[in-house]
Amino acid sequence: MADLTDAGLLFVLSGPSGVGKGTVGRALRKRLPQLAYSVSVTTRPPRPGERDGVDYFFVAPPRFQEMIAQGEVLEWAEVYGHWYGTPRAFVEKLLRSHIDILLEIDTQGAMQVKERYPDAVTLFLLPPSLKELRKRIERRGTETREAAAERFRSAQVELTLAPRYDYAIVNDRLDEAVRRCEAVVVAEHCRSRRLRFPQYAAEINREEDIR
Amino acid sequence: MADLTDAGLLFVLSGPSGVGKGTVGRALRKRLPQLAYSVSVTTRPPRPGERDGVDYFFVAPPRFQEMIAQGEVLEWAEVYGHWYGTPRAFVEKLLRSHIDILLEIDTQGAMQVKERYPDAVTLFLLPPSLKELRKRIERRGTETREAAAERFRSAQVELTLAPRYDYAIVNDRLDEAVRRCEAVVVAEHCRSRRLRFPQYAAEINREEDIR
Repeated sequence: MADLTDAGLLFVLSGPSGVGKGTVGRALRKRLPQLAYSVSVTTRPPRPGERDGVDYFFVAPPRFQEMIAQGEVLEWAEVYGHWYGTPRAFVEKLLRSHIDILLEIDTQGAMQVKERYPDAVTLFLLPPSLKELRKRIERRGTETREAAAERFRSAQVELTLAPRYDYAIVNDRLDEAVRRCEAVVVAEHCRSRRLRFPQYAAEINREEDIR
Repeated sequence: MADLTDAGLLFVLSGPSGVGKGTVGRALRKRLPQLAYSVSVTTRPPRPGERDGVDYFFVAPPRFQEMIAQGEVLEWAEVYGHWYGTPRAFVEKLLRSHIDILLEIDTQGAMQVKERYPDAVTLFLLPPSLKELRKRIERRGTETREAAAERFRSAQVELTLAPRYDYAIVNDRLDEAVRRCEAVVVAEHCRSRRLRFPQYAAEINREEDIR
């Protein structure tokens, strides 16, 4: 199928803590295998089952500092005492190779990426309600009651950032949220301003003889 | 599934003569039955099988003139000696009722609609190649060889309008073109700038007591 654009697009899936970025992102990549996942680098210790180089690149704080100093991370944020970042070289290599990338990052990081790559497509996941968001944060159960309460308070502030994103999608039913994210990926590739019309015009000129 | 916007959106499916607007539009409405079809009004005589009030409203030229004079058509164009237009009252009633509408119209009409409704979402269908477009125009077989040649010449001029549209989609494989149009409809409903964030904020305020 002819696609008029061969540029790799950078998609940013973000939203408040607990909204389900990881779950939606995984399901989306399953439906769109051509969408590369950018493995983040973090100073947070691995949770049970997490693998280095797959879920995250786990590094010690001094190495993370060095990466920032060397400009090796595209965006970074401190979240509850740990650092998270996106390795720049990996992302830029894929985009140059015309491969789409999905970043699943927090709201601080998403705003940094949009500033550096205005052409990035940003998606904000919204909870169906605040009540449900609180439940999801508490259900995680990997932190103290107090940490969860703090996470919920921050999430409410983060929600006010939604209008700054290109798209906002309610993560109520997972399959419906994923369907909408997929539609954004497909539609963004059809935006006229991304298309290589000069090439198309060239084809028209080449074909003039068929008139 | 929660949808943050309840506005009806106006979609305009356009493209050069012969590109397959009708075929793609019909298939798209089959997949998205909530997408209302705007029946155009025309002075062209019915082709075999076309029904009044379903495919078009067929009217005599004097009645069409009167409709223009009374502001009863949203856009109109003369195409190969016949007039085509979109009844304004019908479209505006649906939009007010929060129903999406699909207009399948020629490029002159599409540009008029975008000017009057900047919020309309415009899609341009491209042929896979000029050679294929010429084939499609000739295959129709409802007009003289000369008329078909003239239609093909105009189509080449119309193709240069593609960059002015919001989206451009190649109609190569029908199912793929329809899938892309569907993605545009779904994605446009998720655009942040269309969402009723004030209402969402109100919900946040209502729920403050659950903290």
